[in-house]
Amino acid sequence: PCGDTGLERGQHPFGPLPRPAGCLELVKRQLFRVGEDWYFLFVLGVLMALISFMMDLIVFRLYEAHRWLYQEVGDYLVLKYLSWTIYPVAMAAFSTGFSQSITPHSGGSGIPELKTILTGVVLEEYLAIKNFGAKVVGLTCTLACGSTIFLGKVGPFVHLSAMAAAYLGKMRTSVMREYEDKFKQNEMLVAAQAVGVATVFGAPISGVLFSIEVMSSHFAVRDYWRGFFAATCGAFMFRLLAVFNSEQETIAAIFKSDLKIDFPFDLPETFFFMILGAICGAIACAYLFCQRWLLAAVRENRLTGRLLATDKPLYSALVVLLLASITFPPGLGQLMASRLSMKEHLISLFDNRTWGVLAQNASVPPAVPGDPQRLWQEWSHPSATIFGTLAFFLLMKFWMLTLATTLPLPAGYFMPIFIYGAAIGRLIGEVVALLFPHGLRVEATTHPIVPGGYALAGAAAFSGAVTHSISTALLVCEATGHLAHVLPVVLAVLVANAIAQKCQPSFYDGTIIVKKLPYLPRIRSRHMASYRVVVEEFMDRRVVAVAKGDGFEEVLAALSATTDGEYPVVESAGSPTLVGTVSRARLVAFLQSHEHPRAPPGPLQEKPASMGTVGDDCAIEPVMLQLSPWTSLHQAHHLFELLKLQHIFVTRYGQLVGAVTRAEVGHGGDTGGGTPGGGGTQGDSARPTASFPLQLRRAIEELANPK
Amino acid sequence: PCGDTGLERGQHPFGPLPRPAGCLELVKRQLFRVGEDWYFLFVLGVLMALISFMMDLIVFRLYEAHRWLYQEVGDYLVLKYLSWTIYPVAMAAFSTGFSQSITPHSGGSGIPELKTILTGVVLEEYLAIKNFGAKVVGLTCTLACGSTIFLGKVGPFVHLSAMAAAYLGKMRTSVMREYEDKFKQNEMLVAAQAVGVATVFGAPISGVLFSIEVMSSHFAVRDYWRGFFAATCGAFMFRLLAVFNSEQETIAAIFKSDLKIDFPFDLPETFFFMILGAICGAIACAYLFCQRWLLAAVRENRLTGRLLATDKPLYSALVVLLLASITFPPGLGQLMASRLSMKEHLISLFDNRTWGVLAQNASVPPAVPGDPQRLWQEWSHPSATIFGTLAFFLLMKFWMLTLATTLPLPAGYFMPIFIYGAAIGRLIGEVVALLFPHGLRVEATTHPIVPGGYALAGAAAFSGAVTHSISTALLVCEATGHLAHVLPVVLAVLVANAIAQKCQPSFYDGTIIVKKLPYLPRIRSRHMASYRVVVEEFMDRRVVAVAKGDGFEEVLAALSATTDGEYPVVESAGSPTLVGTVSRARLVAFLQSHEHPRAPPGPLQEKPASMGTVGDDCAIEPVMLQLSPWTSLHQAHHLFELLKLQHIFVTRYGQLVGAVTRAEVGHGGDTGGGTPGGGGTQGDSARPTASFPLQLRRAIEELANPK
Repeated sequence: PCGDTGLERGQHPFGPLPRPAGCLELVKRQLFRVGEDWYFLFVLGVLMALISFMMDLIVFRLYEAHRWLYQEVGDYLVLKYLSWTIYPVAMAAFSTGFSQSITPHSGGSGIPELKTILTGVVLEEYLAIKNFGAKVVGLTCTLACGSTIFLGKVGPFVHLSAMAAAYLGKMRTSVMREYEDKFKQNEMLVAAQAVGVATVFGAPISGVLFSIEVMSSHFAVRDYWRGFFAATCGAFMFRLLAVFNSEQETIAAIFKSDLKIDFPFDLPETFFFMILGAICGAIACAYLFCQRWLLAAVRENRLTGRLLATDKPLYSALVVLLLASITFPPGLGQLMASRLSMKEHLISLFDNRTWGVLAQNASVPPAVPGDPQRLWQEWSHPSATIFGTLAFFLLMKFWMLTLATTLPLPAGYFMPIFIYGAAIGRLIGEVVALLFPHGLRVEATTHPIVPGGYALAGAAAFSGAVTHSISTALLVCEATGHLAHVLPVVLAVLVANAIAQKCQPSFYDGTIIVKKLPYLPRIRSRHMASYRVVVEEFMDRRVVAVAKGDGFEEVLAALSATTDGEYPVVESAGSPTLVGTVSRARLVAFLQSHEHPRAPPGPLQEKPASMGTVGDDCAIEPVMLQLSPWTSLHQAHHLFELLKLQHIFVTRYGQLVGAVTRAEVGHGGDTGGGTPGGGGTQGDSARPTASFPLQLRRAIEELANPK
Repeated sequence: PCGDTGLERGQHPFGPLPRPAGCLELVKRQLFRVGEDWYFLFVLGVLMALISFMMDLIVFRLYEAHRWLYQEVGDYLVLKYLSWTIYPVAMAAFSTGFSQSITPHSGGSGIPELKTILTGVVLEEYLAIKNFGAKVVGLTCTLACGSTIFLGKVGPFVHLSAMAAAYLGKMRTSVMREYEDKFKQNEMLVAAQAVGVATVFGAPISGVLFSIEVMSSHFAVRDYWRGFFAATCGAFMFRLLAVFNSEQETIAAIFKSDLKIDFPFDLPETFFFMILGAICGAIACAYLFCQRWLLAAVRENRLTGRLLATDKPLYSALVVLLLASITFPPGLGQLMASRLSMKEHLISLFDNRTWGVLAQNASVPPAVPGDPQRLWQEWSHPSATIFGTLAFFLLMKFWMLTLATTLPLPAGYFMPIFIYGAAIGRLIGEVVALLFPHGLRVEATTHPIVPGGYALAGAAAFSGAVTHSISTALLVCEATGHLAHVLPVVLAVLVANAIAQKCQPSFYDGTIIVKKLPYLPRIRSRHMASYRVVVEEFMDRRVVAVAKGDGFEEVLAALSATTDGEYPVVESAGSPTLVGTVSRARLVAFLQSHEHPRAPPGPLQEKPASMGTVGDDCAIEPVMLQLSPWTSLHQAHHLFELLKLQHIFVTRYGQLVGAVTRAEVGHGGDTGGGTPGGGGTQGDSARPTASFPLQLRRAIEELANPK
């Protein structure tokens, strides 16, 4: 009966015959009922697919324009050089300038920041819709540079998708309570990430999995369908548009490969696949280390640091000029297949045929641009063999890619890593095919090695190792529509991940560390001692609390003592039983509504009873969770991770004795003056402050590096 | 420095030169370091793959023996009938008798119980290794009955795998603390489930995903690699054994289909795929309802209830006799392709060709048993067309399957559902192919409909709807090695799931409900009122607490008042500040160590001070988490789900005011006399008691069905 009235109230809030305005409200309420969010997801998926497709079209046109320009200038080497370099330099400079001028949040991929948001940190500005246009335009220009600067679009699309989801989500916050709203927003963001990946690769299932692995530490199975539904809508629409545009006859994989499936690989080849995984893992470690080092070095260097702080477009232009000069086709570019676009790179590397065999066949006609059957010829060079070009490509792209990640323009870093991995795999595959030209069996039936399979495994293993994710194995299958190699691919990915996770933080975690975003490290210590560390040992004992009976003076003292957003309220200073919490804003309002006892001219009465106290005048919110001082570090870490906590109070027998936090202080701009000087690139885009008193984090780090 | 000593202590517990025994201990400790559990996972995967493969071999031999027997008895119809029916009847009766005589836990699939264990409930006996043999032998016999009783092996394999993991896990519990151990066990169980699915289908990725979706409500991404690694080892080994056994030339999908991939489906066909999804969803709802109804009806019916309670083998024999009689090939069986085994059913349904076209071709030679190209002929019948046989198959198998799930023998229910779904899809596909013999386009190039694609989608959609999971879409792709249909398959699965999840609990949840296992329902209420329900409204206020100063009398009173496993300890009866908890066992030990004050002959002293109190003599464990009375129902539910809580105390300003529980009382056998009389089938296997005071659950259910 008690629930009944509540329901009745909820259903018919306007009496039996609602007025027109009420009727509208009713319809709206029915439409936006909690949980019935499938139309949002549908709209999100379709919208992102449209944007992704349109962007691909425009980028293709821009890329074609560049190619045409390069062809048309004739054989003057200087003109050729200028047309090759000026175009991407202009694009990159415009991309940087435009996006940075509108909002500093639009640089970089956005995945590290989103990952931070998903752990419960509020980076409000980061999902503001005004970033959307800047990021779309900037990304289009970045992509139009093509393989010169060699950047992709996965990360920015995840960010775009999250922005769209946050914007759509605002349409219905009015009907929901704050708590539920927070969870809903999280659910929408998780779905949005899946959409972002799915609309780039046209891969719904691995889109969901990859976004989960990269973004979250814990995942609610009940959110699964949201991600799947939105990602499927997005991927379906994306592939559908390709059909409508007559690129394809029907829906098919985006990088469709024609690897033969009747005998994909021989059993002993598994060994080579595992070696490939190990190589990819090792290179990923080196890459991650160099990337993190360079990102920090570029900021700390006086020259580049100043450039990044003041003249971002100039920095972009200079870096891109360097990259473009190296990829100049008549120069070093001819050894790196630099005339291919990103997509052509991938398609050529996933080629069904063995390049080593094709190259021996001398009577091949010259390359026709755009013919997928001839793309591999870009890799063959008269003096260097295909092995030489592949090795040179890997060598050069290693540092070029590292350098490109420091560019302060909207760009994704997954696709280049993916292609790089495919090149590693192709090289190993070609070597294996050269060593065993008739396959590994000595029987009558010869099953030649398929280097394309190694390229698949390499792409999955390297990108998996760099991002610390396993679902790239599925991503590569979905993107190519080829499932026969799934087992060796998964094996290679597992081996690569084992090595990379042992040695280095993931690409995104590394960026979070370099950008000094709030970050809860994993407890890596395997020592038994780590299980004996309890909250008491690392909690912050100096918690500034407000007593229920506190007046103006005490509140003012508390407010000036720290900058926390929330203060614990205790029964009285003498017996600090935790009663609840009160927000900083409320305390400030409390101060404003009461005069300063000494401010009035007649200071006769000392703190009159009518002044009011915190307990009487402020709304005290109850405390949901408390830790005990004997909770272990592992348990506390688990709670923080699971519940996305920012801080939690520690009580002993109900009395407040400390707090454990991981929230950064002063976010929101009040105290944000402390950003380190030269911090450039994408670092200042989220603008969190550098210092945050992370008791939990410090405890974990102390454990990892005992002095 | 403080952490340093702890580490030193952990590393060198035996001084600089350890004694031989200490040395061994050291090696063991190094080997079984926390987290380094990959060899366990490896062993688990390989072990389960071996068992799965061996079982398949033995089942195949047993099945062949039956087929041979049936062929050899000649044309006497009575002999044929007897040979057809007696064999499965004997097998099923033996399977039931053998497994039930060793342990009652071995019946059924085991997934519902595992799901319950993963929510934090302890069903100790259920993972005991002695069930292992019983389940293996029983399952082999069940599978040997083949398509007569139409049951699979996924569920039991998940259970077997979990048992093996629990057994392996016990080898290293000694070095770990209890808390960590609990989490480790969970991690191992999650990996074990993935192994179970992966070793049956040879599908590593979907094995992980399916097990996550079916078993957990929340998932830690850090467990991902465990599942993937173990499942990959299992799947790889399983497929490898098939190669060694010369079944295949190299590793390939288990139900490899040769659907053409250059033009898998036309765009307008998406519409038919969605209709197929809707049909599968509707049938799944009907199936789930009937299954739950029959499971309860069979127990409540006087005759079958008594049979199940006392003579399980007889019940099995009778049911299987009925099923076998119906599938008798010269009788109704000829309309149901009953001569095919389960695997042949699936391979025939996933056939690349259009049966409707094949059937028109009159000059087909008679069927050769075992030839995969001719399997479809079992479905063609001279008088009934293939449409007739498919429809008849679906009609009959619907209730036969429902009936088969009541059998108290070890068996899986996923595979039959999978095949049933494939048959639905094949029927729809054939109808579409009949309606549009030249495909949906009117252009010159005709792309005929591929009914096999519909069979794929149907299998995924129906099994997904019944189990409420989406990853069946990937499972079907991995099992057939065919990825081109992935988008329409995912669409069909989403549509089917939307319908099924709206109307019915999943197959496993339904079984949990019927078996009265502890179960935390989801909050389905969409009303705003549900967000206003707070803990205060539904918490249990009558918590029996023990005060720190309590002596013999009070403890005895508390112990007799309730049967909880854990008692809250408060400061004193007057000021009930929550201090910690004490286990029932400790309180009992406390009672035993202190004499009854009135028992000694000289009862002069009334409760002497030397008698000791709870606070002095019992180890009081700290309370980690407390709720506040103002926590909302949604938040409390979320916490219970996330942290796998069984109960939690509610404190107001540190003082104990109530408790919220979902633990069942009296589990452990003390009070287990209350099992309802006729409770048969798999219901009594886990033996939880029927009544448990679930404040949280009751609150949710009240919300869902307001009076």
